[in-house]
Amino acid sequence: MMDDLDRLARRLGYRFQDPALFELALSHRSVSRRRNNERLEFLGDALLSQFISTELFHRFPDAAEGQLTRMRAFLVRGQTLAEVARELGVGEYLILGGGELKSGGNRRDSILADALEALIGAIVIDSGEDTCRRVVLEWFAGRLEQISPQSVRKDGKTRLQEWLQARKHELPAYEVLSVTGQAPRQTFEVECTLPDLDRRFVAAGASRRRAEQQAAEQALSWLEQSS
Amino acid sequence: MMDDLDRLARRLGYRFQDPALFELALSHRSVSRRRNNERLEFLGDALLSQFISTELFHRFPDAAEGQLTRMRAFLVRGQTLAEVARELGVGEYLILGGGELKSGGNRRDSILADALEALIGAIVIDSGEDTCRRVVLEWFAGRLEQISPQSVRKDGKTRLQEWLQARKHELPAYEVLSVTGQAPRQTFEVECTLPDLDRRFVAAGASRRRAEQQAAEQALSWLEQSS
Repeated sequence: MMDDLDRLARRLGYRFQDPALFELALSHRSVSRRRNNERLEFLGDALLSQFISTELFHRFPDAAEGQLTRMRAFLVRGQTLAEVARELGVGEYLILGGGELKSGGNRRDSILADALEALIGAIVIDSGEDTCRRVVLEWFAGRLEQISPQSVRKDGKTRLQEWLQARKHELPAYEVLSVTGQAPRQTFEVECTLPDLDRRFVAAGASRRRAEQQAAEQALSWLEQSS
Repeated sequence: MMDDLDRLARRLGYRFQDPALFELALSHRSVSRRRNNERLEFLGDALLSQFISTELFHRFPDAAEGQLTRMRAFLVRGQTLAEVARELGVGEYLILGGGELKSGGNRRDSILADALEALIGAIVIDSGEDTCRRVVLEWFAGRLEQISPQSVRKDGKTRLQEWLQARKHELPAYEVLSVTGQAPRQTFEVECTLPDLDRRFVAAGASRRRAEQQAAEQALSWLEQSS
């Protein structure tokens, strides 16, 4: 185990003074209800958001608040964290209980993302905030170089609204047509109506929000093609 | 203006080296689309969450992640921030444009909460993170003394689910009965069904989530009274 952790330490760019903290950060809840990485994840999540926010604030002195918020959302969302965790090789070192091991838990995005956040929490306890910030920003260095206020698009509903407003059209109306299944595995069917254009677009999704975004995207592509 | 800011500085427990930054933090978007406190609010929001998270993590070494998350949510929600802003007298010093002034904007919770976050962002730029953390934790000192893992209840849907599971009942089902009005002023009517108890509870709210929580609370009080 310690050899493995040594290898991971090199990839992380950080060597723990307290190896127990390192192991705790990699311990999924399926190992133990009491001794797992959930508290460290709570801590790391808040630190990550602050590091990224502060970095974006200073990197983009002319970006509006909405642009900063969208860039942050992209960088700290579960999918991005799971990608970073994969690049660092975190998945190989996850400590999982029987059930999660069998189900291929070390590949699941959410477990990887949570472990990455837990590592951040563990590093801050092990070495303080300055070191932690330096290590974490290095993990995100490539993505921070790539991102720009222009590269992160607004969501479909916002773009649809702006498109319609710019052309003096009425705003869209969204209505839930049906909700099927039991939470948390529900499917929402949503209709997006463009009142003065007399068009309706129906889409489904795992949440009302997702279904609405999907319907808005459909409306947008129709508008962009037919205008 | 500078005398006013002096008085506010005493109440905040912090004196700005750069008075322009102080004024910017108090400048609502209604004053200027370009020169307002929105970017500072973005920065301050992330710092506040990190300060509170770190503090809770260390104050409650035995709290579970879910308890920490609920305590943080209580402390950083808009309503709490608006209360803190009122205690510090921030409302009197807000710099608002014509429209917001007339509509009593300086009393609106969201404007107060945003200004408080913007002040946090301004302090960190003015004096760095250590000073900022000390000032901010002082604002929240009373609430941090009061709060405990037990004092922050789980939400209604979670408590209902746990109540039913503990008694081997079937889980509740939620269904949207109707959505009326145009976003963002919609009203959701939701039904919560307890299948094996053959009971239904209907509630309305400004979001599907709120309506569901409300219906779950109704179901819970019925269960607690009739059991």
